Amino acid sequence: MQKRSKKILGVDPGTLLMGYSVIETRNNSIQMLEMDAMRLSSKQDHYERLQLIHARICELIREHKPDEFAIEAPFFGKNVQSMLKLGRAQGVAIAAAMQAGIPVTEYSPRKVKQSVTGNGNADKDQVWKMLRDIFQLREVPKYFDSTDALAIAVCHHFQLSGPLRNGTSKKLKGWEAF
Amino acid sequence: MQKRSKKILGVDPGTLLMGYSVIETRNNSIQMLEMDAMRLSSKQDHYERLQLIHARICELIREHKPDEFAIEAPFFGKNVQSMLKLGRAQGVAIAAAMQAGIPVTEYSPRKVKQSVTGNGNADKDQVWKMLRDIFQLREVPKYFDSTDALAIAVCHHFQLSGPLRNGTSKKLKGWEAF
Repeated sequence: MQKRSKKILGVDPGTLLMGYSVIETRNNSIQMLEMDAMRLSSKQDHYERLQLIHARICELIREHKPDEFAIEAPFFGKNVQSMLKLGRAQGVAIAAAMQAGIPVTEYSPRKVKQSVTGNGNADKDQVWKMLRDIFQLREVPKYFDSTDALAIAVCHHFQLSGPLRNGTSKKLKGWEAF
Repeated sequence: MQKRSKKILGVDPGTLLMGYSVIETRNNSIQMLEMDAMRLSSKQDHYERLQLIHARICELIREHKPDEFAIEAPFFGKNVQSMLKLGRAQGVAIAAAMQAGIPVTEYSPRKVKQSVTGNGNADKDQVWKMLRDIFQLREVPKYFDSTDALAIAVCHHFQLSGPLRNGTSKKLKGWEAF
Protein backbone atom coordinates (compact mmCIF):
# COMPACT_ATOMS: atom_id res chain seq x y z
CA MET A 1 0.00 0.00 0.00
CA GLN A 2 1.35 3.37 -0.92
CA LYS A 3 2.06 5.73 1.90
CA ARG A 4 -0.57 8.45 1.94
CA SER A 5 1.44 11.10 3.72
CA LYS A 6 4.85 12.35 2.73
CA LYS A 7 7.34 14.37 4.70
CA ILE A 8 9.79 16.63 2.94
CA LEU A 9 12.86 18.16 4.56
CA GLY A 10 13.95 21.34 2.78
CA VAL A 11 17.40 22.72 3.48
CA ASP A 12 19.16 25.91 2.50
CA PRO A 13 22.70 25.37 3.73
CA GLY A 14 25.04 28.29 4.05
CA THR A 15 28.28 28.77 5.88
CA LEU A 16 26.82 31.25 8.37
CA LEU A 17 23.12 30.42 8.40
CA MET A 18 21.40 27.18 7.55
CA GLY A 19 17.66 27.32 6.98
CA TYR A 20 15.61 24.15 7.34
CA SER A 21 11.99 23.23 7.20
CA VAL A 22 9.86 20.08 7.32
CA ILE A 23 6.47 19.85 5.66
CA GLU A 24 3.97 17.03 5.62
CA THR A 25 1.60 16.44 2.75
CA ARG A 26 -1.42 14.22 3.16
CA ASN A 27 -3.86 13.77 0.32
CA ASN A 28 -4.52 17.37 -0.65
CA SER A 29 -3.45 19.03 2.56
CA ILE A 30 -0.06 20.49 3.33
CA GLN A 31 1.25 21.28 6.77
CA MET A 32 4.39 22.94 8.05
CA LEU A 33 5.95 20.94 10.90
CA GLU A 34 9.13 22.90 11.39
CA MET A 35 10.78 26.02 10.03
CA ASP A 36 13.91 27.47 11.52
CA ALA A 37 17.44 28.60 10.83
CA MET A 38 20.62 27.67 12.62
CA ARG A 39 23.00 30.54 13.09
CA LEU A 40 26.65 29.67 12.75
CA SER A 41 29.21 32.06 14.10
CA SER A 42 32.05 33.28 11.91
CA LYS A 43 34.15 32.89 15.04
CA GLN A 44 33.58 29.15 14.90
CA ASP A 45 36.08 26.97 13.14
CA HIS A 46 34.98 25.97 9.64
CA TYR A 47 35.00 22.30 10.66
CA GLU A 48 32.99 23.02 13.76
CA ARG A 49 30.34 24.58 11.52
CA LEU A 50 30.36 21.56 9.20
CA GLN A 51 29.83 19.34 12.25
CA LEU A 52 26.94 21.48 13.45
CA ILE A 53 25.29 21.37 10.01
CA HIS A 54 25.73 17.62 9.77
CA ALA A 55 24.52 17.07 13.34
CA ARG A 56 21.40 19.18 12.87
CA ILE A 57 20.44 17.44 9.63
CA CYS A 58 20.95 14.04 11.27
CA GLU A 59 18.81 15.22 14.18
CA LEU A 60 16.03 16.46 11.90
CA ILE A 61 16.07 13.15 10.02
CA ARG A 62 15.88 11.17 13.28
CA GLU A 63 13.06 13.33 14.57
CA HIS A 64 10.85 13.67 11.50
CA LYS A 65 11.88 10.67 9.35
CA PRO A 66 11.40 12.58 6.09
CA ASP A 67 10.73 10.68 2.87
CA GLU A 68 12.42 13.26 0.71
CA PHE A 69 15.28 15.71 1.02
CA ALA A 70 15.39 18.88 -1.10
CA ILE A 71 18.25 21.33 -1.18
CA GLU A 72 18.83 24.72 -2.76
CA ALA A 73 21.91 24.86 -4.89
CA PRO A 74 23.09 28.17 -6.22
CA PHE A 75 25.44 27.81 -9.12
CA PHE A 76 27.17 31.13 -8.84
CA GLY A 77 28.95 32.78 -6.00
CA LYS A 78 31.25 35.59 -5.13
CA ASN A 79 34.55 33.80 -5.23
CA VAL A 80 36.15 30.37 -5.40
CA GLN A 81 36.95 30.31 -1.69
CA SER A 82 33.35 30.96 -0.62
CA MET A 83 32.08 28.42 -3.15
CA LEU A 84 34.40 25.75 -1.77
CA LYS A 85 33.05 26.41 1.71
CA LEU A 86 29.46 26.42 0.49
CA GLY A 87 30.10 23.18 -1.39
CA ARG A 88 31.41 21.57 1.80
CA ALA A 89 28.35 22.74 3.74
CA GLN A 90 26.11 21.26 1.05
CA GLY A 91 28.23 18.10 0.96
CA VAL A 92 27.90 17.29 4.67
CA ALA A 93 24.14 18.00 4.52
CA ILE A 94 23.73 15.77 1.44
CA ALA A 95 25.80 13.01 3.07
CA ALA A 96 23.49 13.02 6.10
CA ALA A 97 20.50 12.43 3.81
CA MET A 98 22.30 9.84 1.70
CA GLN A 99 23.31 7.91 4.78
CA ALA A 100 19.69 7.71 5.88
CA GLY A 101 18.69 6.46 2.43
CA ILE A 102 16.63 9.53 1.64
CA PRO A 103 16.41 10.63 -2.01
CA VAL A 104 18.12 13.98 -2.58
CA THR A 105 16.84 16.54 -5.06
CA GLU A 106 18.39 19.91 -5.72
CA TYR A 107 16.78 23.04 -7.10
CA SER A 108 18.21 26.28 -8.34
CA PRO A 109 17.05 29.41 -6.44
CA ARG A 110 15.27 30.55 -9.59
CA LYS A 111 13.37 27.28 -9.86
CA VAL A 112 12.26 27.51 -6.22
CA LYS A 113 10.95 31.06 -6.66
CA GLN A 114 9.23 30.19 -9.88
CA SER A 115 7.62 27.11 -8.39
CA VAL A 116 6.30 28.93 -5.31
CA THR A 117 5.33 32.32 -6.73
CA GLY A 118 5.14 31.71 -10.46
CA ASN A 119 7.97 34.18 -10.97
CA GLY A 120 11.61 33.09 -11.09
CA ASN A 121 12.74 36.60 -10.22
CA ALA A 122 10.49 37.05 -7.17
CA ASP A 123 12.15 38.66 -4.16
CA LYS A 124 12.33 37.13 -0.68
CA ASP A 125 9.35 39.15 0.51
CA GLN A 126 7.11 37.89 -2.32
CA VAL A 127 8.16 34.31 -1.57
CA TRP A 128 7.40 34.87 2.12
CA LYS A 129 3.93 36.30 1.40
CA MET A 130 3.01 33.33 -0.75
CA LEU A 131 4.18 30.88 1.92
CA ARG A 132 2.35 32.87 4.60
CA ASP A 133 -0.88 32.43 2.63
CA ILE A 134 -0.34 28.73 1.93
CA PHE A 135 0.41 27.85 5.55
CA GLN A 136 -1.52 30.67 7.23
CA LEU A 137 1.54 31.77 9.11
CA ARG A 138 1.40 34.77 11.40
CA GLU A 139 4.84 35.40 12.72
CA VAL A 140 7.40 36.98 10.46
CA PRO A 141 10.45 34.73 10.61
CA LYS A 142 13.64 36.01 12.14
CA TYR A 143 15.71 34.91 9.16
CA PHE A 144 14.59 34.63 5.56
CA ASP A 145 16.85 31.56 5.35
CA SER A 146 14.16 29.59 7.18
CA THR A 147 11.45 30.65 4.72
CA ASP A 148 13.84 29.83 1.89
CA ALA A 149 14.04 26.30 3.26
CA LEU A 150 10.25 26.13 3.49
CA ALA A 151 10.04 27.35 -0.12
CA ILE A 152 12.44 24.57 -1.20
CA ALA A 153 10.28 21.93 0.50
CA VAL A 154 7.14 23.37 -1.11
CA CYS A 155 8.83 23.51 -4.51
CA HIS A 156 9.75 19.84 -4.16
CA HIS A 157 6.19 18.97 -3.17
CA PHE A 158 4.88 20.74 -6.28
CA GLN A 159 7.41 18.86 -8.41
CA LEU A 160 6.37 15.53 -6.95
CA SER A 161 2.66 16.12 -7.16
CA GLY A 162 2.30 18.53 -10.05
CA PRO A 163 1.32 17.49 -13.53
CA LEU A 164 4.19 19.41 -15.06
CA ARG A 165 7.73 18.26 -14.61
CA ASN A 166 10.78 19.68 -16.16
CA GLY A 167 14.46 18.97 -16.15
CA THR A 168 15.61 21.74 -13.84
CA SER A 169 15.83 19.55 -10.78
CA LYS A 170 18.31 16.75 -10.29
CA LYS A 171 17.14 13.72 -8.47
CA LEU A 172 18.92 10.78 -7.05
CA LYS A 173 17.54 7.85 -5.14
CA GLY A 174 19.20 7.53 -1.75
CA TRP A 175 20.59 4.21 -0.76
CA GLU A 176 20.39 2.23 2.41
CA ALA A 177 23.30 -0.12 2.13
CA PHE A 178 25.86 1.41 4.45
CA MET B 1 47.35 2.13 27.79
CA GLN B 2 48.08 4.16 24.74
CA LYS B 3 47.61 2.44 21.44
CA ARG B 4 50.98 1.67 19.92
CA SER B 5 49.95 1.53 16.30
CA LYS B 6 48.06 4.20 14.44
CA LYS B 7 46.27 4.01 11.13
CA ILE B 8 45.89 7.10 8.99
CA LEU B 9 43.52 7.39 6.04
CA GLY B 10 44.68 10.03 3.56
CA VAL B 11 42.24 11.26 0.96
CA ASP B 12 42.58 13.52 -2.05
CA PRO B 13 39.01 13.99 -3.22
CA GLY B 14 38.32 15.31 -6.66
CA THR B 15 35.25 15.31 -8.81
CA LEU B 16 36.75 12.93 -11.38
CA LEU B 17 39.41 11.06 -9.44
CA MET B 18 39.63 10.40 -5.75
CA GLY B 19 42.96 9.19 -4.41
CA TYR B 20 43.07 7.36 -1.10
CA SER B 21 45.67 5.62 0.98
CA VAL B 22 45.93 3.97 4.38
CA ILE B 23 49.18 3.81 6.30
CA GLU B 24 49.94 2.17 9.62
CA THR B 25 52.60 3.45 11.96
CA ARG B 26 53.93 1.30 14.77
CA ASN B 27 56.68 2.57 17.01
CA ASN B 28 59.21 3.78 14.47
CA SER B 29 58.00 1.80 11.48
CA ILE B 30 55.62 2.96 8.80
CA GLN B 31 53.74 0.71 6.42
CA MET B 32 51.48 1.35 3.46
CA LEU B 33 48.33 -0.77 3.63
CA GLU B 34 46.44 0.63 0.70
CA MET B 35 46.99 3.14 -2.09
CA ASP B 36 44.58 3.56 -4.93
CA ALA B 37 42.43 5.99 -6.85
CA MET B 38 38.78 5.73 -7.75
CA ARG B 39 37.98 6.96 -11.21
CA LEU B 40 34.69 8.77 -11.57
CA SER B 41 33.22 9.22 -14.98
CA SER B 42 32.20 12.63 -16.20
CA LYS B 43 29.22 10.80 -17.70
CA GLN B 44 28.03 9.97 -14.22
CA ASP B 45 25.59 12.25 -12.52
CA HIS B 46 27.21 14.59 -10.01
CA TYR B 47 25.17 13.03 -7.19
CA GLU B 48 26.10 9.55 -8.27
CA ARG B 49 29.74 10.57 -7.92
CA LEU B 50 29.12 12.02 -4.47
CA GLN B 51 27.52 8.73 -3.46
CA LEU B 52 30.47 6.76 -4.79
CA ILE B 53 32.94 8.96 -2.90
CA HIS B 54 30.93 8.67 0.30
CA ALA B 55 30.48 4.91 -0.12
CA ARG B 56 34.16 4.28 -0.74
CA ILE B 57 35.25 6.33 2.28
CA CYS B 58 32.71 4.49 4.47
CA GLU B 59 34.03 1.19 3.10
CA LEU B 60 37.67 2.14 3.79
CA ILE B 61 36.74 3.18 7.32
CA ARG B 62 34.91 -0.09 7.94
CA GLU B 63 37.78 -2.13 6.54
CA HIS B 64 40.77 -0.39 8.10
CA LYS B 65 39.27 1.38 11.13
CA PRO B 66 41.64 4.34 10.82
CA ASP B 67 42.41 6.48 13.87
CA GLU B 68 42.95 9.61 11.83
CA PHE B 69 41.60 11.12 8.63
CA ALA B 70 43.68 13.60 6.62
CA ILE B 71 42.47 15.44 3.56
CA GLU B 72 44.09 17.72 1.01
CA ALA B 73 42.33 21.00 0.62
CA PRO B 74 43.31 23.32 -2.18
CA PHE B 75 42.23 26.86 -1.58
CA PHE B 76 42.20 28.03 -5.14
CA GLY B 77 40.54 26.69 -8.21
CA LYS B 78 39.66 27.51 -11.74
CA ASN B 79 36.15 28.79 -11.26
CA VAL B 80 33.31 29.01 -8.77
CA GLN B 81 31.39 26.13 -10.34
CA SER B 82 34.28 23.68 -10.08
CA MET B 83 35.01 24.82 -6.53
CA LEU B 84 31.41 24.20 -5.48
CA LYS B 85 31.65 20.67 -6.86
CA LEU B 86 35.02 20.09 -5.22
CA GLY B 87 33.64 21.41 -1.94
CA ARG B 88 30.76 18.94 -2.14
CA ALA B 89 33.14 16.05 -2.84
CA GLN B 90 35.22 17.09 0.18
CA GLY B 91 32.06 17.56 2.23
CA VAL B 92 30.72 14.04 1.72
CA ALA B 93 34.19 12.57 2.42
CA ILE B 94 34.54 14.65 5.60
CA ALA B 95 31.03 13.68 6.72
CA ALA B 96 31.91 9.98 6.39
CA ALA B 97 34.87 10.48 8.72
CA MET B 98 32.92 12.68 11.14
CA GLN B 99 30.17 10.10 11.35
CA ALA B 100 32.67 7.43 12.34
CA GLY B 101 34.07 9.73 15.03
CA ILE B 102 37.45 10.04 13.32
CA PRO B 103 39.38 13.30 13.78
CA VAL B 104 39.69 15.22 10.50
CA THR B 105 42.75 17.27 9.61
CA GLU B 106 43.24 19.18 6.40
CA TYR B 107 46.45 20.22 4.73
CA SER B 108 47.19 22.55 1.87
CA PRO B 109 48.93 20.97 -1.14
CA ARG B 110 51.99 23.08 -0.37
CA LYS B 111 52.15 21.84 3.20
CA VAL B 112 51.93 18.21 2.04
CA LYS B 113 54.78 18.65 -0.44
CA GLN B 114 56.89 20.48 2.06
CA SER B 115 56.31 17.88 4.73
CA VAL B 116 57.18 14.94 2.47
CA THR B 117 60.01 16.36 0.37
CA GLY B 118 61.13 19.40 2.32
CA ASN B 119 60.11 21.60 -0.61
CA GLY B 120 56.67 23.18 -0.82
CA ASN B 121 57.06 23.60 -4.57
CA ALA B 122 58.06 20.00 -5.32
CA ASP B 123 56.42 18.47 -8.37
CA LYS B 124 54.41 15.23 -8.37
CA ASP B 125 57.38 13.21 -9.56
CA GLN B 126 59.58 14.41 -6.71
CA VAL B 127 56.85 13.54 -4.20
CA TRP B 128 56.49 10.10 -5.76
CA LYS B 129 60.23 9.40 -5.59
CA MET B 130 60.36 10.29 -1.92
CA LEU B 131 57.37 8.05 -1.14
CA ARG B 132 58.89 5.24 -3.23
CA ASP B 133 62.01 5.40 -1.06
CA ILE B 134 60.10 5.57 2.24
CA PHE B 135 57.86 2.60 1.43
CA GLN B 136 60.19 0.79 -0.99
CA LEU B 137 57.52 0.77 -3.66
CA ARG B 138 58.27 -0.72 -7.05
CA GLU B 139 55.28 -0.16 -9.24
CA VAL B 140 54.65 3.28 -10.64
CA PRO B 141 51.05 4.12 -9.75
CA LYS B 142 48.51 4.50 -12.49
CA TYR B 143 47.30 7.82 -11.16
CA PHE B 144 49.31 10.37 -9.21
CA ASP B 145 46.12 11.01 -7.23
CA SER B 146 46.80 7.83 -5.29
CA THR B 147 50.36 8.93 -4.40
CA ASP B 148 48.96 12.34 -3.46
CA ALA B 149 46.72 10.58 -0.95
CA LEU B 150 49.69 8.60 0.39
CA ALA B 151 51.62 11.87 0.70
CA ILE B 152 48.75 13.38 2.71
CA ALA B 153 48.73 10.43 5.11
CA VAL B 154 52.52 10.64 5.49
CA CYS B 155 52.34 14.39 6.03
CA HIS B 156 49.79 13.83 8.79
CA HIS B 157 51.99 11.16 10.39
CA PHE B 158 54.92 13.60 10.41
CA GLN B 159 52.70 16.26 11.96
CA LEU B 160 51.52 13.90 14.69
CA SER B 161 54.92 12.47 15.51
CA GLY B 162 57.30 15.27 14.59
CA PRO B 163 58.80 17.61 17.12
CA LEU B 164 57.86 20.64 15.07
CA ARG B 165 54.29 21.68 14.67
CA ASN B 166 52.93 24.67 12.96
CA GLY B 167 49.59 26.23 12.35
CA THR B 168 49.09 25.30 8.72
CA SER B 169 46.88 22.33 9.42
CA LYS B 170 43.40 22.53 10.83
CA LYS B 171 42.38 19.83 13.20
CA LEU B 172 39.10 18.89 14.66
CA LYS B 173 38.28 16.05 16.98
CA GLY B 174 35.64 13.80 15.47
CA TRP B 175 32.62 12.98 17.52
CA GLU B 176 30.80 9.77 18.20
CA ALA B 177 27.44 10.97 19.30
CA PHE B 178 25.29 10.36 16.24
